[in-house]
Amino acid sequence: MPELRKDPVVGRWVIIATERARRPGNIVDSSENTFNGEAGACPFCHNTDPVIYSVKNPKDPSAAEWAVRVVPSGTPILQPRPYCSRSGHGLYDVMSDFGTHEVVIETPHHIANVADLEEHQVQLVLNTYVARIEDLRKNPNYKYALPYKNYGWVAGARRIGHARSQIVATPVNPLRVKEKLVGAKKYFDYHERCVYCDLLRQELKSRERVIIESDHFVALTPFAARFLFEIWIVPKRHHCDFAEGVIGYENDLAWILKTLLLRIKIGLEDPAYNYVIHSAPFLREADRKTKWKTIEEDYHWHIEIMPRLTRVAGFEKGTGFYICPVPPEDMAEFLRGVELNA
Amino acid sequence: MPELRKDPVVGRWVIIATERARRPGNIVDSSENTFNGEAGACPFCHNTDPVIYSVKNPKDPSAAEWAVRVVPSGTPILQPRPYCSRSGHGLYDVMSDFGTHEVVIETPHHIANVADLEEHQVQLVLNTYVARIEDLRKNPNYKYALPYKNYGWVAGARRIGHARSQIVATPVNPLRVKEKLVGAKKYFDYHERCVYCDLLRQELKSRERVIIESDHFVALTPFAARFLFEIWIVPKRHHCDFAEGVIGYENDLAWILKTLLLRIKIGLEDPAYNYVIHSAPFLREADRKTKWKTIEEDYHWHIEIMPRLTRVAGFEKGTGFYICPVPPEDMAEFLRGVELNA
Repeated sequence: MPELRKDPVVGRWVIIATERARRPGNIVDSSENTFNGEAGACPFCHNTDPVIYSVKNPKDPSAAEWAVRVVPSGTPILQPRPYCSRSGHGLYDVMSDFGTHEVVIETPHHIANVADLEEHQVQLVLNTYVARIEDLRKNPNYKYALPYKNYGWVAGARRIGHARSQIVATPVNPLRVKEKLVGAKKYFDYHERCVYCDLLRQELKSRERVIIESDHFVALTPFAARFLFEIWIVPKRHHCDFAEGVIGYENDLAWILKTLLLRIKIGLEDPAYNYVIHSAPFLREADRKTKWKTIEEDYHWHIEIMPRLTRVAGFEKGTGFYICPVPPEDMAEFLRGVELNA
Repeated sequence: MPELRKDPVVGRWVIIATERARRPGNIVDSSENTFNGEAGACPFCHNTDPVIYSVKNPKDPSAAEWAVRVVPSGTPILQPRPYCSRSGHGLYDVMSDFGTHEVVIETPHHIANVADLEEHQVQLVLNTYVARIEDLRKNPNYKYALPYKNYGWVAGARRIGHARSQIVATPVNPLRVKEKLVGAKKYFDYHERCVYCDLLRQELKSRERVIIESDHFVALTPFAARFLFEIWIVPKRHHCDFAEGVIGYENDLAWILKTLLLRIKIGLEDPAYNYVIHSAPFLREADRKTKWKTIEEDYHWHIEIMPRLTRVAGFEKGTGFYICPVPPEDMAEFLRGVELNA
């Protein structure tokens, strides 16, 4: 049975995934190469897994059995269990495997990139994220849920040309999430303003790094971008929680997300990419009273898009000091100039 | 001129390397493909760069002009400047490009992997790291120096089959380094013992994760390994600083480093890898009085080796929650069993 282990120095939890076990000497996942890319054998076109959630296309309810469907991951990194046990192991901390790992099949059709889906279909995907998060939130043992996408092999996806994303719920707050929460809180403690709201005001004034803007969202290359063409989508309306904050704006977000991914696809020759939705952790009364007292005020949900165009070398791995080979201002200008109807 | 920019939320410094400029739409570094891999055209075999440091083989001083040589990087990520200026940009923090980036040419011969060098040659490389760090330490503007290696294209190296590593000195303490310092200090504050010393005691008792051990060093797979075959080399003697702490043990470290890299090469089919040497930052009196009062007691230098066998996907990027597909105990057992003289 897999387990969660904590690094005793930096406090980072790691999933030791023995259920996905591969022999150490046989490290290439054989499943990578079993599917030849054709729709006929696609496990998402012809999915027979138990359905966790499913939604029809409201514009055409007769068209297909489902428009977006959520199923359990075939190679789960965490699994639901009756309870989550914690234990010590000398100076080490261990937690039993506990969580969920769901796959969101984003279309019934064999289309690889969500950039190529219709806007209303992208909106159904966003609605699905919201529905699943609201359901996962009910489990008091889950602290966080992360919707994310791996597109392309370099970004960690298997070689299957069918658009899908994933949702993982975890029993702890991940280190990178904590880092953001702590940073945002520190800024708020001093300024009594949200750092993301301040950042948006400054970005909308200078516009140097703004790629596109809609009524409710701004897409920009961050001032201190880590990667080539790193992009943030930040909602104009302050809200710490994605699933609550996006309500009423799903349509607008679907447009900006699709448009950005299309600009990346056309402008950068269809690169591999990841996106992740950053939100506040699930708030319990106990947390609200201690650590995250002002989280509604100090945190601001957002989406990070990371095309996988550069390799991460030893210097970055060792220091966390990233090197971005092009100024974010130039990246924004380039993406603004991509012709979508060429 | 490139600059350092700080992420306003998490405080991460990023190098925006405009001097390595590539047009955003032309992102593949053309230099990657200009060298065909043959020794005749190798820029390290026939290096004409100004020499920063050079050492002869003491066992055979007549053999070659030099045994290990340090030259400035041809594509520096940071450069020496007369001074380091800091400024604000609205809510953002900026620092001018400032630092050094040196290349350590590890052998005069066209040999790709340091695992294939003689042990005494590896020792000369370690001696060179020490000499360069002692020199860089004299510059009061440098806060940290990181010796690291990128081996293989996936690990960030150019396609040149000549063993070399790199040393970068930075004007700030990198985020990942701070994370370790803060974690080790927290542990020491509570236990009044070094976390790495405690960890070594426990590992040497169980031996489950110990790969090899020498008189002065232990090589192990960490309990909460992030990557397949992540390895730490930890000195048995407590010392916070690599360049000071390794003195007298270079020979022993050269043996354990070479042996490990050879086991990785043979057992895992010559994969790409990175290694980084983690040490305390350069200590100034001011730092000693404030932040790092007990650093000599609470921090413990070590080396991290990271073979690049698995891809990092969206979940890891978004959460910092790594997934290791094989238990560290199995990885250690596998590496213990690799036959070096097969």
